[in-house]
Amino acid sequence: MHKVEVNVGANVTEANRREAEENREHLDEHGVKAVDILGAVGSGKTMLIEKLTPILQKRGMKVGAIVGDCYGDDDYQRIHSLKIPTQNLNTGTECHLDAHMVHHALHKLPLDDINFLFIENVGNMVCPTDFPVGSHKRVVIVSVTEGDDVVNKHPAMFRECEIGIINKVDLAEAVGASVERMERDMKRHNSNIKILKTNLKKGVGVEELADMLLKN
Amino acid sequence: MHKVEVNVGANVTEANRREAEENREHLDEHGVKAVDILGAVGSGKTMLIEKLTPILQKRGMKVGAIVGDCYGDDDYQRIHSLKIPTQNLNTGTECHLDAHMVHHALHKLPLDDINFLFIENVGNMVCPTDFPVGSHKRVVIVSVTEGDDVVNKHPAMFRECEIGIINKVDLAEAVGASVERMERDMKRHNSNIKILKTNLKKGVGVEELADMLLKN
Ligand SMILES: Nc1nc2c(ncn2[C@@H]2O[C@H](COP(=O)(O)OP(=O)(O)OP(=O)(O)O)[C@@H](O)[C@H]2O)c(=O)[nH]1
Ligand SMILES: Nc1nc2c(ncn2[C@@H]2O[C@H](COP(=O)(O)OP(=O)(O)OP(=O)(O)O)[C@@H](O)[C@H]2O)c(=O)[nH]1
Ligand SMILES: [Mg+2]
Ligand SMILES: [Mg+2]
Ligand SMILES: [Zn+2]
Ligand SMILES: [Zn+2]
Repeated sequence: MHKVEVNVGANVTEANRREAEENREHLDEHGVKAVDILGAVGSGKTMLIEKLTPILQKRGMKVGAIVGDCYGDDDYQRIHSLKIPTQNLNTGTECHLDAHMVHHALHKLPLDDINFLFIENVGNMVCPTDFPVGSHKRVVIVSVTEGDDVVNKHPAMFRECEIGIINKVDLAEAVGASVERMERDMKRHNSNIKILKTNLKKGVGVEELADMLLKN
Repeated sequence: MHKVEVNVGANVTEANRREAEENREHLDEHGVKAVDILGAVGSGKTMLIEKLTPILQKRGMKVGAIVGDCYGDDDYQRIHSLKIPTQNLNTGTECHLDAHMVHHALHKLPLDDINFLFIENVGNMVCPTDFPVGSHKRVVIVSVTEGDDVVNKHPAMFRECEIGIINKVDLAEAVGASVERMERDMKRHNSNIKILKTNLKKGVGVEELADMLLKN
């Protein structure tokens, strides 16, 4: 049983990797830079897009978004109201986006009117790491309210991402979390990761994040 | 590709269901009542066990625990320090416990010295719903800091559980969450679910939760 599962798993992730490369080529042809936003449920992924969009627009970027959730259009409605091209992806019983779903969404977006694309993954610290979707950068956002052990528990996630955000720092005391421990664990999992502490609700750290995302 | 994945998926979940039934029989033979604690990363699953254990002990229960995480022993250390029999399960790249893993942990626990067993699942709002582990009750805990849309987004989770906890109500204002919306969405997904609002850090709602868990 387990063996069957593992073998099929390998085929599935291999096929996904190929389709992710096709997505990347597709994006490059249209001059679109894509960023995949990963993180636990409720860590602040949608708010990150909400806060970054006007800043990126001020800097001349044409922003679009693909938002993934198991069910419903809560995030879609929030991003759609920013008046940028947006596609909703519902994964149903799947706990992550895959390259095939993103491929379909790309075909529905006006890619020539976009040069910066957010892809918000499903809230999950495990499976999205195994399913690249073709983005140029992967960003992980965790929040202190998840407990300061959240980074330690998910090594693969931090190894996979170039930028690690620690959000809701305004609530660290209320939950009893050490931001220092979270930073230390990130560095231990990935010595190259760029770390940023944010209070997205108040907009703290968003300009710095825009700098990081637009660099090279 | 997708078809292969789905078919194997059905076999895997079917085999898991059979093994979950075996776990249940195993627990029943030893007179152990087991509760599976589900919820997003950092929703308060471990703190729920920490706060409930002394209360259940005062009511004469002999408590034990199995704690699941992808990696590390953060939760194990917290529960172990309560001086109850505890087993740690690391799932690695898997995003949920399964009945087979729990079967192995059951064999390592002194079941005759336990009559109430907590099984803390991996933080994930999706996949654990498809993998029962043999518990008698399933409890889902979400926290307001995940955003008040977290319930709406995960219908299967709330359909699957008998008790739904809304935790960290002390932080609702700080994140701008409506507890009422969360309650409404729970009822909509599952009209039979028993709902409890808690501030586990302060112990608010824990006695009521003990009542619910010990009932029938
Ligand atoms: N206090 C505080 N609240 C925040 C901060 N960032 C986000 N929030 C709140 O946290 C909740 C979740 O934010 P979202 O942006 O919806 O999180 P998400 O990661 O998109 O959630 P899912 O898509 O459901 O996984 C919302 O209630 C936000 O208002 C922050 O820095 N401080
Ligand atoms: N303010 C406040 N903080 C809480 C409450 N409940 C839990 N916390 C904090 O939330 C964080 C996460 O709690 P845990 O019990 O570790 O959550 P968990 O669901 O076991 O987390 P994982 O096992 O990592 O998925 C910790 O920092 C707790 O102190 C609450 O009701 N109010
Ligand atoms: Mg979101
Ligand atoms: Mg825990
Ligand atoms: Zn999964
Ligand atoms: Zn075995």
